[in-house]
Amino acid sequence: MDNLIKKILAFRDARNWSQYHKPKDLAISVALEAGELLENFQWRTNEEAVTEKFDNIKDELADVFIYLFLLSDRLGIDVKAAIEDKLVQNELKYPLRKAYGSRKKYDEL
Amino acid sequence: MDNLIKKILAFRDARNWSQYHKPKDLAISVALEAGELLENFQWRTNEEAVTEKFDNIKDELADVFIYLFLLSDRLGIDVKAAIEDKLVQNELKYPLRKAYGSRKKYDEL
Amino acid sequence: MDNLIKKILAFRDARNWSQYHKPKDLAISVALEAGELLENFQWRTNEEAVTEKFDNIKDELADVFIYLFLLSDRLGIDVKAAIEDKLVQNELKYPLRKAYGSRKKYDEL
Amino acid sequence: MDNLIKKILAFRDARNWSQYHKPKDLAISVALEAGELLENFQWRTNEEAVTEKFDNIKDELADVFIYLFLLSDRLGIDVKAAIEDKLVQNELKYPLRKAYGSRKKYDEL
Repeated sequence: MDNLIKKILAFRDARNWSQYHKPKDLAISVALEAGELLENFQWRTNEEAVTEKFDNIKDELADVFIYLFLLSDRLGIDVKAAIEDKLVQNELKYPLRKAYGSRKKYDEL
Repeated sequence: MDNLIKKILAFRDARNWSQYHKPKDLAISVALEAGELLENFQWRTNEEAVTEKFDNIKDELADVFIYLFLLSDRLGIDVKAAIEDKLVQNELKYPLRKAYGSRKKYDEL
Repeated sequence: MDNLIKKILAFRDARNWSQYHKPKDLAISVALEAGELLENFQWRTNEEAVTEKFDNIKDELADVFIYLFLLSDRLGIDVKAAIEDKLVQNELKYPLRKAYGSRKKYDEL
Repeated sequence: MDNLIKKILAFRDARNWSQYHKPKDLAISVALEAGELLENFQWRTNEEAVTEKFDNIKDELADVFIYLFLLSDRLGIDVKAAIEDKLVQNELKYPLRKAYGSRKKYDEL
């Protein structure tokens, strides 16, 4: 993952874009790219979307990842540690006994 | 990264949630978590958001990552390859000569 | 509609909130409330969402409307004129002959 | 407002689009259009967005309204009543005494 992050940051720095990468704007970017990813599923069933739009889904998914890594870098967040920490929190919010096979949110369990 | 993905999938499988993880719903989840991340910046300047909401930003950022990895797994997408492929495409959309120091979108360059 | 807008603005002004209502933050609010509306459909079929979540859908739908009216007011946009103007543009983007019965986007027609 | 809604529904029906307008997809559409509205503010200050992007902001704002009205119609929701009802709820969540001049969410007041 470190190598991948280095490539993303090198892309940014080669274009001198770091000056624009304020956290609020990067968080907006993550949300906008997530919307573009979702757009592939609009008016389509799961099967239709995956069949007709797979390449675009893959590209937009990559874009969300890229902006997430850029925001993490800007805020000095260690992605791996943040995810592992969140999984521990989620273990508490969704204990096996209650959450097994349920699609309910933690506050409804 | 492979090890991290394994932990995320193990969390899902221990709860038997795979049955609910249709691509369209996972794409919705990515968008919703991106919204929760962005909510930390609502009504706040960059400085205020980072000072007052850092922990929540870190947690929500992790949630977007987690759903992205779940969607990638569901669609059989290799995250590393998808990002590297997208960076190559972005090199063509944002050539150094035109994109250096510019915040314009590729279709306005 | 004018009467409705007046009530929304009166709610805002009674709380002295106008000072916080910068256009960028209101646009973020519209997106976040749209996410909360969409959340009711996450993991659910159309039928399940409408049956199980109707009241919340109605409330979140109202919230998106409220923020849209607040943003329109802040920018001095006449909502009725803006919608009518957009419908005329959409007539050109989606001519009857091409768009009838099609779910394609205008640039794919 | 009734007359405006009639025009929006006539646009839909002339194209025989009602068949595609499932609630879940319309809720996705609202979120996507809200993203396109927000995109005008990405990388820009409030002043820059309003100066450089006013016409597009007006158009995207109209699009969010149009999809909201389409979703309301599909679900049989009376928009005016829903907004007035939500304002009453918001009066309770944000009582004047606590909410005056505060940007806090109701659960932090």
